[in-house]
Amino acid sequence: MKRIAIDMDEVIADFNTKHLRLFNEQYNEQLTVHDLQGTRLRLLRPHLKNEIIGYLKDPSFFRDLDVMANSQEVIKQLSEQYEIYITTAAMEYPTSFAAKYEWLKEHFSFLSDMNFVFCGDKSIIRADYLIDDNVRHFEHFAGQGILFHAPHNVNEHAEIRVHNWLEIRDYFLR
Amino acid sequence: MKRIAIDMDEVIADFNTKHLRLFNEQYNEQLTVHDLQGTRLRLLRPHLKNEIIGYLKDPSFFRDLDVMANSQEVIKQLSEQYEIYITTAAMEYPTSFAAKYEWLKEHFSFLSDMNFVFCGDKSIIRADYLIDDNVRHFEHFAGQGILFHAPHNVNEHAEIRVHNWLEIRDYFLR
Repeated sequence: MKRIAIDMDEVIADFNTKHLRLFNEQYNEQLTVHDLQGTRLRLLRPHLKNEIIGYLKDPSFFRDLDVMANSQEVIKQLSEQYEIYITTAAMEYPTSFAAKYEWLKEHFSFLSDMNFVFCGDKSIIRADYLIDDNVRHFEHFAGQGILFHAPHNVNEHAEIRVHNWLEIRDYFLR
Repeated sequence: MKRIAIDMDEVIADFNTKHLRLFNEQYNEQLTVHDLQGTRLRLLRPHLKNEIIGYLKDPSFFRDLDVMANSQEVIKQLSEQYEIYITTAAMEYPTSFAAKYEWLKEHFSFLSDMNFVFCGDKSIIRADYLIDDNVRHFEHFAGQGILFHAPHNVNEHAEIRVHNWLEIRDYFLR
């Protein structure tokens, strides 16, 4: 059985919507994901970088992110033909561990927590495929990287790019 | 550069000493690691299994474990010639994440936290070697398993068994 490793933020967890909402509320702005094309909020407002990163250090930030559209049903389908692992670069925000774990248990309860991986450098992951929004994780990955489209990565080159979970279903189950 | 993945409990973190102390204090017993040869505390006192496992659910349990003898200096030496990853089956006790992370930052501060992996099933680990006290993790591991001697595994078969960190140094740096 082939194995698919799947990232969390901006792949199955809608990181941007909450992050932008907190920022817009605090600084009375109206930024949307369209403003994030090819960039990141912290690069767009560099003088507020510490505050922007600060939201992510709140242990509860990752607990109530929305689930990305169609990710649950497609992963459930994929799990019948592939081994599914959730591989998230949690070491960047160590305070996020518990929230990320609880979020996965709530929204992807059909996956075993034995298949959750909280790591830093993803070259440690042994899988046939890695679905991720960060191209840097593909560099030393031994399998096939699949770039999940996100505002920040629109200008990145990727051998395979998917825009949503229905495209992923087509890629694996066509 | 070849890569060595290293487990935490009973390999770099002295799990048994604290676990036995808490148990002995609470139940007025005098058990030692000699009583754990080929078994586990929960198998030795099955009627207290819930209490025995309960200690591990305390979020602070893993925070102040002793460091296994010579592990720091040997891993520091190894890190000059090998990529070192710490790979711990933390999903069994999700409340342990923060304590394990802080423990590693305190005692193995020369390692990058990008090289920490909290996982469940270790077949997800891509490394050339895995040093672990549980033979089950070698079953689907693609590299060379190295069994770290522990009371519970004395009767297990392993291709390579090491008894302490000086033997590991000899194995890799001889």
